[in-house]
Amino acid sequence: MNTANFKEILESSWCYAGGFLDAGRVSSYIATLAAADASHLGCAVMTNEGDCYKLGHCDVLFSMQSISKVISLMYALKILGRDAVFAKVGMEPTGDPYNCIIKLETAGEKPFNPFINAGAITVISLLAENALFRDVLAFCGMVFGEDVHVDEDIFAQEMQAGKRNRSMAYLMSSKGALGEDVEAYLNFYFCLCSVKVNAAHLAHMGAVLACGGKSPITGKEIVPDWIIPITKAIMLTCGMYDGSGEFAVSVGLPAKSGIGGGIVAAAGGMGIGTFGPSLDIKGNSVGGIRFLQYLSENTGISMFKNQ
Amino acid sequence: MNTANFKEILESSWCYAGGFLDAGRVSSYIATLAAADASHLGCAVMTNEGDCYKLGHCDVLFSMQSISKVISLMYALKILGRDAVFAKVGMEPTGDPYNCIIKLETAGEKPFNPFINAGAITVISLLAENALFRDVLAFCGMVFGEDVHVDEDIFAQEMQAGKRNRSMAYLMSSKGALGEDVEAYLNFYFCLCSVKVNAAHLAHMGAVLACGGKSPITGKEIVPDWIIPITKAIMLTCGMYDGSGEFAVSVGLPAKSGIGGGIVAAAGGMGIGTFGPSLDIKGNSVGGIRFLQYLSENTGISMFKNQ
Amino acid sequence: MNTANFKEILESSWCYAGGFLDAGRVSSYIATLAAADASHLGCAVMTNEGDCYKLGHCDVLFSMQSISKVISLMYALKILGRDAVFAKVGMEPTGDPYNCIIKLETAGEKPFNPFINAGAITVISLLAENALFRDVLAFCGMVFGEDVHVDEDIFAQEMQAGKRNRSMAYLMSSKGALGEDVEAYLNFYFCLCSVKVNAAHLAHMGAVLACGGKSPITGKEIVPDWIIPITKAIMLTCGMYDGSGEFAVSVGLPAKSGIGGGIVAAAGGMGIGTFGPSLDIKGNSVGGIRFLQYLSENTGISMFKNQ
Amino acid sequence: MNTANFKEILESSWCYAGGFLDAGRVSSYIATLAAADASHLGCAVMTNEGDCYKLGHCDVLFSMQSISKVISLMYALKILGRDAVFAKVGMEPTGDPYNCIIKLETAGEKPFNPFINAGAITVISLLAENALFRDVLAFCGMVFGEDVHVDEDIFAQEMQAGKRNRSMAYLMSSKGALGEDVEAYLNFYFCLCSVKVNAAHLAHMGAVLACGGKSPITGKEIVPDWIIPITKAIMLTCGMYDGSGEFAVSVGLPAKSGIGGGIVAAAGGMGIGTFGPSLDIKGNSVGGIRFLQYLSENTGISMFKNQ
Repeated sequence: MNTANFKEILESSWCYAGGFLDAGRVSSYIATLAAADASHLGCAVMTNEGDCYKLGHCDVLFSMQSISKVISLMYALKILGRDAVFAKVGMEPTGDPYNCIIKLETAGEKPFNPFINAGAITVISLLAENALFRDVLAFCGMVFGEDVHVDEDIFAQEMQAGKRNRSMAYLMSSKGALGEDVEAYLNFYFCLCSVKVNAAHLAHMGAVLACGGKSPITGKEIVPDWIIPITKAIMLTCGMYDGSGEFAVSVGLPAKSGIGGGIVAAAGGMGIGTFGPSLDIKGNSVGGIRFLQYLSENTGISMFKNQ
Repeated sequence: MNTANFKEILESSWCYAGGFLDAGRVSSYIATLAAADASHLGCAVMTNEGDCYKLGHCDVLFSMQSISKVISLMYALKILGRDAVFAKVGMEPTGDPYNCIIKLETAGEKPFNPFINAGAITVISLLAENALFRDVLAFCGMVFGEDVHVDEDIFAQEMQAGKRNRSMAYLMSSKGALGEDVEAYLNFYFCLCSVKVNAAHLAHMGAVLACGGKSPITGKEIVPDWIIPITKAIMLTCGMYDGSGEFAVSVGLPAKSGIGGGIVAAAGGMGIGTFGPSLDIKGNSVGGIRFLQYLSENTGISMFKNQ
Repeated sequence: MNTANFKEILESSWCYAGGFLDAGRVSSYIATLAAADASHLGCAVMTNEGDCYKLGHCDVLFSMQSISKVISLMYALKILGRDAVFAKVGMEPTGDPYNCIIKLETAGEKPFNPFINAGAITVISLLAENALFRDVLAFCGMVFGEDVHVDEDIFAQEMQAGKRNRSMAYLMSSKGALGEDVEAYLNFYFCLCSVKVNAAHLAHMGAVLACGGKSPITGKEIVPDWIIPITKAIMLTCGMYDGSGEFAVSVGLPAKSGIGGGIVAAAGGMGIGTFGPSLDIKGNSVGGIRFLQYLSENTGISMFKNQ
Repeated sequence: MNTANFKEILESSWCYAGGFLDAGRVSSYIATLAAADASHLGCAVMTNEGDCYKLGHCDVLFSMQSISKVISLMYALKILGRDAVFAKVGMEPTGDPYNCIIKLETAGEKPFNPFINAGAITVISLLAENALFRDVLAFCGMVFGEDVHVDEDIFAQEMQAGKRNRSMAYLMSSKGALGEDVEAYLNFYFCLCSVKVNAAHLAHMGAVLACGGKSPITGKEIVPDWIIPITKAIMLTCGMYDGSGEFAVSVGLPAKSGIGGGIVAAAGGMGIGTFGPSLDIKGNSVGGIRFLQYLSENTGISMFKNQ
């Protein structure tokens, strides 16, 4: 596919996706998210040569929320190694909503995977005990291709609203699956969720994943390459909440969504970032999913088609 | 990689895997499975040009068991279409064991996916109401590259031992998620589970999946090509019971295992079939998984490495 | 309280209860129950001297349904002894609906108590293996003060509609909590559920419970006296489905309801039987509960008031 | 039964119970409980004329723990009325352990009953919002017949160890079943759990329950009489954790146990208090249960025998 064609397909995908925004709703559990503009849709693509295509609201900043789970997983793998991380969290998808408590109660010691809240808090607890937040934030800067910052206002709202996560964390701590310093972990967790990014940042992040951990711009290693297939495999099986299976069928890319409206995806040779705060019932961006689905259907970037 | 190298890696993989057979146990819920030889390990690879490499016990016949779930899914998609099938069964991985009843009770109407028992019985009910068993068996013959047959003795044992599946089927029927003719569905289901295949048959099946639904030998269409990415996506997220996530990380191929000891996998340009009745705690062939893991680590066939 | 006063209170109770029949609905899972007349309300009281007071539809026959669980418990205790019975079934109330499957899956080997369906089928399995149905039916005759009979038509409908019970029975059998002959147990169970009684029969049964197991008419032993406190304790904690706790608070009597519209209760010195097919959301007779509540509030027969 | 005989039976009961203390273990989740002397057994009986019989360690003070749930229920009923309390908490036994989280997640809005932790915290939240702790403590003084005090050391340990209760409280608050001021409720709850009493205090409390809410010594009303049958009914169905059903069968008295080793029971015309920190697997005092069982079997005080 040549560049002109590709640009055309991107535009068609963006137009197609725009028609679905009314089908979703913005998240409302904190005021800042509730105030998001449901008509926004930004889609960015960065190739492994560092070229970037942008459509729509690619410069609007929003909190990365659950996309932080990819960041914390990669950083924990980087500083602690595979065995230390997966001693504390599993690799299995669950089919349950991201904030499900039942399984913590009925299943074994470890949260099922690092992308449900319980698993993410577990990974974060490893970071809180072995790293400084500013180091993680510096790592974010490399992954996103630009310095990013915590939105203090969102952080304060998350801390206030996060009763269910607080409940999960204390439950895990009571079972010995999490350490003692529960409030510190929650602080770290909500802080990372409150980092603001835009769709172009996510496209850069996707390109890092597509390039074996290297910067698509400088070619320098950001993440050791052995971390990439692990991360992409877990993104594919668990990245889109309890819609991950359907996304694998209809789009076929490793991706991760956040309730702030972002999605990051890694395709062969490029990274994709989308932003659309109108969410479906599972918490995934309606516009982002539709953009990726149209793009996948019209380009064959699905992992399940091209090999 | 040239042919000589590839053969060498296959042999190393087979040798490596053989060292783990003691770590598992043969299934014991029916006498025929309990009588399997835990030291058996057969691994076959068929390229998309129809070349076949065989190592070890590739001619030993065994019941395909849960690998039948791929057959029934593909055949149901073929005769009924995507919408009719997924109106009755979901696409989401669960993280629960294959025979979990809790989710049928607590979650919505549809079983989570076609590869847990509840979902497979649902798909089978569609076949039972819309096809003849002999047509499905003929379809098996095309997928496996050779006529295959039901083992009547195993079938009789399954019907006797299958109380938990019977329980699930009646529960679903009581909720309206399954039709009325429960015993007929179970009959059909256990019949298909009792079809005997060998590792070479599974390699052929894997090659059909790797070739977009075409026979690797004749090039003729066996399954319409749109069915293949759906099937492979569900295999990747749900194919290895509640070990699917870890398999995606460590091997990175769409695959499906059966409690008879078989695994079918589709890699880029080739199909892989393995047989090893020594099973791990999740019901997956210890030898098959180790073979595929070694092969993946030494060839880069993982979907998450090569793009 | 003298006889004239007592009769007056009974009439007031019956009138009061009649005003609530519109608040419920007849059961509809089988045709015969669905055809019941929701305006029926029969209330009978038998003293421990054998005097019987009848109000309303006390001669209308209906299937005893879950009231059979008291019969099967008492008969199993009588022929097998306390230890043999409670080796197979617990004594704990659950708070779950009577046909809940989750606990069978998550909790230990034994069903929680003999009055949930799973527990009742377990008790019935002991009877099926150690007694003839005709002996149990003869025992019914003694408990009810008159010969009673299976309604073959209802039995046939129950066998057809009982998928959920069939599911539970096969699940228990698969776990070893129930024997092998599942269909025979279900046959026995549905047969006993389909025995037809009237409110006066239930008053006689209540009087047997109130008289330490003796016939209120002949004084002869029907059930050994050690069985009575066990039975009444389980009736109090588990007799009214997941409304047992509220019934203990508002009425305060050992009682058992059936989805056919019957309730049997044992008070100090008398038995009470009610029939009213209009059921509340938990499956208890609206009219029966209101009659008992009014009677309890105006006479002090509640166990929690009079000592 | 004359006084001499009764004293003899009490002594026999106490001796009998003493033989079972080895079968249990002291609670170990906080240091103070872990340090309790497992060989202690104190049993006190107070008649409705205020006579008190004491055997063994009746003056040893221990934290009342879950017995506080009876106090908070009665006090909430007293100051807020029946409807306000049961709008927030149910009346149904559960069969689950006292600290079960699953049901909070799967069942409706209200905790099942006021004697599981979730329900008790809910009742406490009503007190925290409508009363002062010192008023509740004054109420305790009346119920126990003597002023009682919070053990600050135990309170501090409970606050530290109470992660699971903290988890439950935040979960309920996140679902709107509990108000916002979670830490204040927990503070109030653990404070009341940490009030120290002895077996004689519990006998007085039992006598208040047996006397329709009046002091057995002064005859003055401590609790309005309408509260007593409600409280006793819930004690009978829910008072002994997930051993309540078996206790109803084998003892047949309204009772409530605490993990500090206390049990309070109300029989016809008398209150019984026991203290024995050796606990069975369900958290009930081994010695207390055996004392009550022997006493019940040899006196006919079971509610299910004497009417």
